Amino acid sequence: MQQVIGIDLGGTNLRVAVVNEEGNIMEEKSTPTDSSRGPEAIMEDMIRFIKDFQKIYPINGVGIGSPGPLDAKAGVILNPPNLPGWERVPLTKQISDAVDLPVFLENDANVAALAEATSGAGVGYESVYYITWSTGIGGGFVLDGKLQPGAAGYAGEIGNMIVQPGGTKYATLNPGALEAVASGTAIGLEGKRQLGIEGGAEAVFNLAQKGNTEAKRIIDDAIHNLAIGIANITFALDPSLFILGGGVMQAEDELLTSLHEKVTSILYEGQTVDMKKATLGGKAGVIGAAQLAFK
Amino acid sequence: MQQVIGIDLGGTNLRVAVVNEEGNIMEEKSTPTDSSRGPEAIMEDMIRFIKDFQKIYPINGVGIGSPGPLDAKAGVILNPPNLPGWERVPLTKQISDAVDLPVFLENDANVAALAEATSGAGVGYESVYYITWSTGIGGGFVLDGKLQPGAAGYAGEIGNMIVQPGGTKYATLNPGALEAVASGTAIGLEGKRQLGIEGGAEAVFNLAQKGNTEAKRIIDDAIHNLAIGIANITFALDPSLFILGGGVMQAEDELLTSLHEKVTSILYEGQTVDMKKATLGGKAGVIGAAQLAFK
Repeated sequence: MQQVIGIDLGGTNLRVAVVNEEGNIMEEKSTPTDSSRGPEAIMEDMIRFIKDFQKIYPINGVGIGSPGPLDAKAGVILNPPNLPGWERVPLTKQISDAVDLPVFLENDANVAALAEATSGAGVGYESVYYITWSTGIGGGFVLDGKLQPGAAGYAGEIGNMIVQPGGTKYATLNPGALEAVASGTAIGLEGKRQLGIEGGAEAVFNLAQKGNTEAKRIIDDAIHNLAIGIANITFALDPSLFILGGGVMQAEDELLTSLHEKVTSILYEGQTVDMKKATLGGKAGVIGAAQLAFK
Repeated sequence: MQQVIGIDLGGTNLRVAVVNEEGNIMEEKSTPTDSSRGPEAIMEDMIRFIKDFQKIYPINGVGIGSPGPLDAKAGVILNPPNLPGWERVPLTKQISDAVDLPVFLENDANVAALAEATSGAGVGYESVYYITWSTGIGGGFVLDGKLQPGAAGYAGEIGNMIVQPGGTKYATLNPGALEAVASGTAIGLEGKRQLGIEGGAEAVFNLAQKGNTEAKRIIDDAIHNLAIGIANITFALDPSLFILGGGVMQAEDELLTSLHEKVTSILYEGQTVDMKKATLGGKAGVIGAAQLAFK
């Protein structure tokens, strides 16, 4: 049986795992990314971990999931806000040269989409649209078990979809972009603006759970805006399943139900859509990255 | 070489053609649909045309494109507004029984998408999103030459995508749906409401060409709204090419340029998207329908 290495290069932690063809993790190592050390030190960690694994397992390739923006085809990390100090780093070439294996790169949302579609909540579904509802909002589309990154790698960049034209402007995104009006960051900023509270989305969810109607309305608005995004993707593409992951999804048990009801209310009468929570949690990064190397 | 029959069942005309594997029309017959005759009379015309062609050509199958709603998998026409009197007509079964050939059915926008992707403006592109900008707005997605109708046949129903939440409500569509704020019908209704003119979208385009600034603004709004829809699909899917067909696209030579500029202004800096006009015109219906039978 083939084994490959999946690497989840996150802003907080670096996780490196040996994964088999069934998508199971054989063994895993991790370390804080500590991005202030710069790319060279972090790549040295990756290479050391890979070489350690190569002593024990026959390894056929390496897949890496990383925050974007990046050039997946060229294997180059551009300048991710979550990896300060990284600037046009030719990641796959440097790792490949050091460990003598083919190395593949994709952005973290696409990698999570691939993992959930092939080994998580999406097993058995023909087409899966994965959405991470977290600090930001991103996604990825997997058809017949194959990631569809799009013509220039922009598929899944749903955080920049306009769902409220002329709405809240945030970072470099469009006014009223999905991420600006529905993300965890957006919920936290509205909590500060409308209620004067610090503590981000978590504080808003806590207040809502105590019955605060304004906090509830902030969350309902975010759900409504995300529902527009999901319904619009359904009209464009009609995937067999949406999978929802990310930190905001963990905030309340009933969120998926509320979101599903709202999406259904926007669809045609009689039209339905399947939606599930992601099941792989923190493991999605290494499992999905490994899938890149199995192709 | 294989030959099949492609049928374009339109609200106005019924076109039946013999098409070869290269997507070329060998011979074609057409007649006014005259839908007041009812489905039986129209199906009799179809069967007669097919039998006439069977005497001359070896025919391997039949594909039919029809206005929706319909159940493509079951081969049943439901109750299209453009085919009054049709109500749950088991079209493929009735035709298949009569001519002893396999018969396939798809909605007209999907059929046009398939035609343009495989034989028209999309030749050589990996993934094509086709949009018909006409009285209504519809579309279809073709990946690697294969139509992607979606899990339940709703892919391409982009006329119901919400691009202006709380905006104009039209027919059974969502308030602010793409078709309600960007279609030829929408342009015509705004012309009537804002300028008091009859004559639909054509009258608004005529006024705009004479320099009327309000008419120009109505058209600019429609372009802006369609651009949001196209940009949103790009963020979700990033197709290699958009193809724009339909009557409104014929109204002005510069429409595609204006639309492309507007879409680009919504995309990320540095992100681009290819857009072309449809090239097959009225032939798309029979050519795309034939493709259904070649699979």
